[in-house]
Amino acid sequence: MSGPARLGLLLGDACGIGPEIVAKLLASDALDPEVATVVIGEPRILARAQGIVDSAVEVPQIERLDQLSGPGPVLLAGPPIDPEDAPIGEVSAVAGRAVLDTFRMALGLAQAGELDGLCFAPCNKQAMHQGGLDLEDELRFFVQELEFKGHVGEVNATDALATTRVTSHVPLRAVADLITADGVLRAIRLARDTLQAAGKPHPRIGVAGLNPHAGDGGIFGREEIEVIGPAVERARAEQIAASGPYPSDTVFLRARDGAFDAVVTMYHDQGQIAMKLLGFERGITIHAGLPIPITTPAHGTAFDIAGRGIARVDALAQACRTAGRMALARRRS
Amino acid sequence: MSGPARLGLLLGDACGIGPEIVAKLLASDALDPEVATVVIGEPRILARAQGIVDSAVEVPQIERLDQLSGPGPVLLAGPPIDPEDAPIGEVSAVAGRAVLDTFRMALGLAQAGELDGLCFAPCNKQAMHQGGLDLEDELRFFVQELEFKGHVGEVNATDALATTRVTSHVPLRAVADLITADGVLRAIRLARDTLQAAGKPHPRIGVAGLNPHAGDGGIFGREEIEVIGPAVERARAEQIAASGPYPSDTVFLRARDGAFDAVVTMYHDQGQIAMKLLGFERGITIHAGLPIPITTPAHGTAFDIAGRGIARVDALAQACRTAGRMALARRRS
Repeated sequence: MSGPARLGLLLGDACGIGPEIVAKLLASDALDPEVATVVIGEPRILARAQGIVDSAVEVPQIERLDQLSGPGPVLLAGPPIDPEDAPIGEVSAVAGRAVLDTFRMALGLAQAGELDGLCFAPCNKQAMHQGGLDLEDELRFFVQELEFKGHVGEVNATDALATTRVTSHVPLRAVADLITADGVLRAIRLARDTLQAAGKPHPRIGVAGLNPHAGDGGIFGREEIEVIGPAVERARAEQIAASGPYPSDTVFLRARDGAFDAVVTMYHDQGQIAMKLLGFERGITIHAGLPIPITTPAHGTAFDIAGRGIARVDALAQACRTAGRMALARRRS
Repeated sequence: MSGPARLGLLLGDACGIGPEIVAKLLASDALDPEVATVVIGEPRILARAQGIVDSAVEVPQIERLDQLSGPGPVLLAGPPIDPEDAPIGEVSAVAGRAVLDTFRMALGLAQAGELDGLCFAPCNKQAMHQGGLDLEDELRFFVQELEFKGHVGEVNATDALATTRVTSHVPLRAVADLITADGVLRAIRLARDTLQAAGKPHPRIGVAGLNPHAGDGGIFGREEIEVIGPAVERARAEQIAASGPYPSDTVFLRARDGAFDAVVTMYHDQGQIAMKLLGFERGITIHAGLPIPITTPAHGTAFDIAGRGIARVDALAQACRTAGRMALARRRS
């Protein structure tokens, strides 16, 4: 396709810090000049946010995407929402419903080929549930709306490191039985595919073990020998630069020192303990595996500081940059 | 008892960095003037180490502890070992046997009331096994030698934070069934007792959950509700400043920011992932619960850099400081 890649940038929950940090991002020089940024949301919410952060940046409004003429950011009005119904710092069913409607609109534009990727400012799960979401989270919502049948998963990433998980929101006692060679291989491939899409042609992937000291030769568990190791071998046979399994208390030290671009973890806290200590609160989540690149900051709506203009824009800027790179790669492929 | 507290400082494995860092510590100003430091080991090994680190510090040798006249460090000859039999940077059964014999000697002096605590430089597990150790590790060796029947455990600590564990070297699939209220309470008490012994009268103890998001109200597991929470309540009824269970991916962020003096973890990697990222390689291990305070640096014998005089002394200095404080408190109690 011709022209620059087009990235939809969604305001997120109107009551949280989302619109503010979008306004800050638009006033910064952090937008990728190779990517046309299309802000999607209620113009009055964006205007309110620009007031909060004291920004006078003009964002031209367009009616249809064929009016796009360059990479400079434009505003496409999303589903209408009266700012009165979206009080700052509160959970609002109206705001939650607007988030879902805006997702539907943006996903439709992406499916129609009018957008190449999406980045959304933080949403509030409680508001989305009050607004009609009957699925666990937005990733499942995207899967349903896109009628997608493939393997998807959350990729958590800081500037320097990404993680995927073999298991996620399950009790710890259920984890070991859910570690299969196919599952480990899927998580390795998801890390490889996502990093390639984000611009790393040969990502180095470290795979964590399940047990203390990665089982210490089978003394503290045999999953490393019987399941994880063979999955790593299968990945290597596919020319993926995967290695491990490594003890999970040292794999992140090695990753921090630059040995890996991604770590594949076996369970939720194995990755999250490390990633949060490594600065993931300023990192991003990639809803990976979908046919459309979709990213969001790792942090939430931060109702406690919303409306004060003090929220940091770093994570949103990184989420936009990553979605933009993925959108560019997708457009060129 | 009268006089200063007496701390036995053991050279550790003669082939590793232990003797060097002891020599560095003796040449520093890091020794506690309230504690009499009694170096225990082969004089020729200490002399070799002083040569490596280029130290001319004179350490007066004594024959018996009743010759102690002040806090300045002295040397008490340990079981003899020919330096020829302890080549630097190699695993040596002779060195391993000397480590065990030195432990026996030091434990005997402590049991006789002649020493108030011990700190040992790094030992090598392989060398100790070759030298006759038929137990899993040195903590079990101490328990056996002291014929101790109480509850013991490893406490891992950095400058700022200590951890205890409810389970340790077991497969991950075995963990959930081993989490009992009694076990959690024992780990909380071990943290409280150890920190009190080290000089913190009212330690604040954060207790980690077992499951993702600490179970999220029972959705991802019920151990927090049925086992861990009640154990925390029992601890509070004993006037221990314990709280939780907290999600394990945020409890360490709070601890890093100063909210807790100790975190009680449910399984090995939950604590070790965090502690290693928080600098535990420069931290210490306390063999806690024993009638005698015993500490050691968290790092190992580092055969790859032994003999070069470049090993850092920080962790040994902290281990000595902590054992010294514990010895003082014990002497005064």
